[in-house]
Amino acid sequence: MESLSDKIRRKPIIGWALFIVTILIVFLLGLLASTIIERRVETVYVGKPRIEISEYEPRNEVWGKAYPREYETYSQMADTTFRSMFHGSAMIDALEFDPRMVVLWAGYGFSKDYTQARGHFYAVTDIRETLRTGGPMEPEQGPMPSTCWTCKSPDVPRIMREIGAEDFYDGPWAEMGPQIVNPIGCADCHDPITMDLRISRPALIEAFNRRGRDISNAPLQEMRTLVCAQCHVEYYFKGSGQYLTYPWDYGFNVEDMEKYYDDLQFSDWEHQISKAPMVKAQHPGYEIFMTGIHAQRGVACADCHMPFKSEGGQKFTDHKIQSPLNNINASCQVCHRESEDELKRNVYERQMKVAEQRFRLEDNLVMAHIEAGIAWEEGATEEAMEPVLKHIRHAQWRWDFAVASHGASFHSPLEIMRIISSAMERVQEARIILARILAKSGSDREIEYPDLSTKAKAQAYIGLEMEELNREKVRFLEEVIPRWEEQAEIREQKYRQY
Amino acid sequence: MESLSDKIRRKPIIGWALFIVTILIVFLLGLLASTIIERRVETVYVGKPRIEISEYEPRNEVWGKAYPREYETYSQMADTTFRSMFHGSAMIDALEFDPRMVVLWAGYGFSKDYTQARGHFYAVTDIRETLRTGGPMEPEQGPMPSTCWTCKSPDVPRIMREIGAEDFYDGPWAEMGPQIVNPIGCADCHDPITMDLRISRPALIEAFNRRGRDISNAPLQEMRTLVCAQCHVEYYFKGSGQYLTYPWDYGFNVEDMEKYYDDLQFSDWEHQISKAPMVKAQHPGYEIFMTGIHAQRGVACADCHMPFKSEGGQKFTDHKIQSPLNNINASCQVCHRESEDELKRNVYERQMKVAEQRFRLEDNLVMAHIEAGIAWEEGATEEAMEPVLKHIRHAQWRWDFAVASHGASFHSPLEIMRIISSAMERVQEARIILARILAKSGSDREIEYPDLSTKAKAQAYIGLEMEELNREKVRFLEEVIPRWEEQAEIREQKYRQY
Repeated sequence: MESLSDKIRRKPIIGWALFIVTILIVFLLGLLASTIIERRVETVYVGKPRIEISEYEPRNEVWGKAYPREYETYSQMADTTFRSMFHGSAMIDALEFDPRMVVLWAGYGFSKDYTQARGHFYAVTDIRETLRTGGPMEPEQGPMPSTCWTCKSPDVPRIMREIGAEDFYDGPWAEMGPQIVNPIGCADCHDPITMDLRISRPALIEAFNRRGRDISNAPLQEMRTLVCAQCHVEYYFKGSGQYLTYPWDYGFNVEDMEKYYDDLQFSDWEHQISKAPMVKAQHPGYEIFMTGIHAQRGVACADCHMPFKSEGGQKFTDHKIQSPLNNINASCQVCHRESEDELKRNVYERQMKVAEQRFRLEDNLVMAHIEAGIAWEEGATEEAMEPVLKHIRHAQWRWDFAVASHGASFHSPLEIMRIISSAMERVQEARIILARILAKSGSDREIEYPDLSTKAKAQAYIGLEMEELNREKVRFLEEVIPRWEEQAEIREQKYRQY
Repeated sequence: MESLSDKIRRKPIIGWALFIVTILIVFLLGLLASTIIERRVETVYVGKPRIEISEYEPRNEVWGKAYPREYETYSQMADTTFRSMFHGSAMIDALEFDPRMVVLWAGYGFSKDYTQARGHFYAVTDIRETLRTGGPMEPEQGPMPSTCWTCKSPDVPRIMREIGAEDFYDGPWAEMGPQIVNPIGCADCHDPITMDLRISRPALIEAFNRRGRDISNAPLQEMRTLVCAQCHVEYYFKGSGQYLTYPWDYGFNVEDMEKYYDDLQFSDWEHQISKAPMVKAQHPGYEIFMTGIHAQRGVACADCHMPFKSEGGQKFTDHKIQSPLNNINASCQVCHRESEDELKRNVYERQMKVAEQRFRLEDNLVMAHIEAGIAWEEGATEEAMEPVLKHIRHAQWRWDFAVASHGASFHSPLEIMRIISSAMERVQEARIILARILAKSGSDREIEYPDLSTKAKAQAYIGLEMEELNREKVRFLEEVIPRWEEQAEIREQKYRQY
């Protein structure tokens, strides 16, 4: 048989043909590589907006036209079926779950109503509906200041730009009602032109400044945590102008902030039973997260709560912000190779250990308040009670710090248990001094732990008139809210463009 | 030019030459593969002994002739330079480091002397030298029973085979002195014929049996933990025969063992000051380790404390048993890709958080003992003191459980903090009741925290005659130990074969 090399020597045309075919194949391979690269480029530049969004545009649906996938996943937060399935309701009633808290917050709004919020999508609805904001029929009525709106809506940076932060904070909550209708969303974290992450709330920028740090230099990965730290932090309302302030001047630990509040002699309220000057911890999620191993390994909030997702060849950030336990495959398992069941078990184990000590601490806190109340009744002096009240204040502040934020006992279990243990020492120290005071007063009154088996019983125990509060709220929701919505509709019509 | 195929066609010899060369190359490759495989086989079968070792051979140097690399690394434990460099001495004096413990153990041997042992290599020397074993000049003298030897030497399984475990435990410590001269070593964990891991101590086998588990079925990876669990566990001396027993019948948690001891009304001693019936936790390293994430992920003790090592192409287990922090590269970094510095920081952070609460707990325990002592002096009734003593017993048992074993706050930081927090509640509960008792007695005695700034001050505070104890010990070491060594030498001569 004639070999190929012989053939080519005989008919040079065959050699040329082979050469040309090779060139063609290489060219086609080039084309293929090019489409692959192009697809990558598409993926990377998917963030390019298709329409223009005005600065401080508060309406999430307008941003949604430019970023349909992000908006679609964001909108999925509206679906609370999952929560309802597990908890009987989308609103987890924390006071029903743990009625001791009614007594711990006696004299403060949280004893009236404390439901675990349904997430960003319902931020505006939920703050309107909670009993804590009361039923103000007129704009100037209380009980809450407009500072309470700060974390609820992208309407807030819009208004702050118009009137300044100081004037925004200084006023009753109801006054700002018609202005704030869009729930937490796009403009809270993003620049509409570049889509870069952006800090929209002054309190975080100011707190960083006071610590000598310019937040505008924060690296991108840190920004993926800092946009969340605009709200998921410890804060208080400073002065008569109710200026939203983070108590970070001495540092981020529970002891640092305790010292900060003590130095200021700040208190949120006086406890109804013990008369202790109390500080309510808000939700120091960021501060606690930073003490945990995930933060130490460089993980950001968004890595687990907003993992990447791929659809139609495009990679984007999942804006359905949720517990990573609902999405273990896309969040935890990016780094951890264990099974979903095992990872869940690991989380629950940490939570259960912390919960065990938390409930023991709460029982002792309840007793401390009640014993202090009796000591007052028996005529204890202010001087004798001073160390008692200080220990109660510190113990409950630490308890609240440990339990108030989302996922604390997962984000940093050891730190949380350390705080609980330190609170345990303090509350019992209060009770040791109280035992001496009560013994000296010669009182033989039997002190029994009250029946706090349900929220209703606990609220009755501290004398809350729940029917009245509920009636007020219903009237407010029926009469005031429609007026607010109407005013907002008219305002938004003016600049509605799409 | 003439092509190769043309050449071959012309002279077939060239084709044959090529064929033969190819065969030769393949043959040589085969040889190479064979030596590689052989080397692997060598590595795998390196455990094959070169000399025969008799059953229950207690002399580690005899095993060392068969397993030179294991013995060489084992012998490296003799070098305590590193510890001396950091601590000024190879023996870390725990009572000097934390003199509160002198008061916590008042009335018990540990208040006399408690040094962190120097490791397996010094096990026999250290138990002879500690003040806790006293200075028995005659075999029948106390203070300790021979059960104390159980974990110190491979002479123990040798003697147990001869006389049985029951008779081994039942007798004074000094009686067994001449028998026990070889420090913890080969025969404690290995079968001399197969080199398989082997449980040599009956207490572990018996505890497993009582829990319905046959330890001889334990998988290899579990055995790499269980050989350590022969000693690094919680145990007590049961009955007048001082039978070594693990209190695992209800489970491995601190609460399970507390219930076990309570049900038995067992106590190691009555506290000198508070008169509380105390339980000394030993070193529940295994039980605590099992609650931590490393155990949950299937890691065994040996994985970190005896990592693999490679020398001269042979892979073997490093028998220099030590803190993985001295060997991060071979231990932690097999799984964790962080830098040595960062991994150390992670460990120290856990330890420091636990230490903080531990010391607060100890301060309160000291106060509880002292306040209880005063209550007795003021004439408190047994009935009134009963709940106080129960809380002190439980609180100190939990404290001891949390701190007594090696590395607890690393092995399972959250569990340790949980235990400390639960102890904090209990000790303070004791002090609350004490405050009532003391107030009722009408005593106005000022109770001050004693000066426990040094071990000497603490020992003087509880009235220990340290000079006398030290004198006894010196005499014992000078007169008795040489006799023991001599007797052992004669015995070992009889069967010395190498």
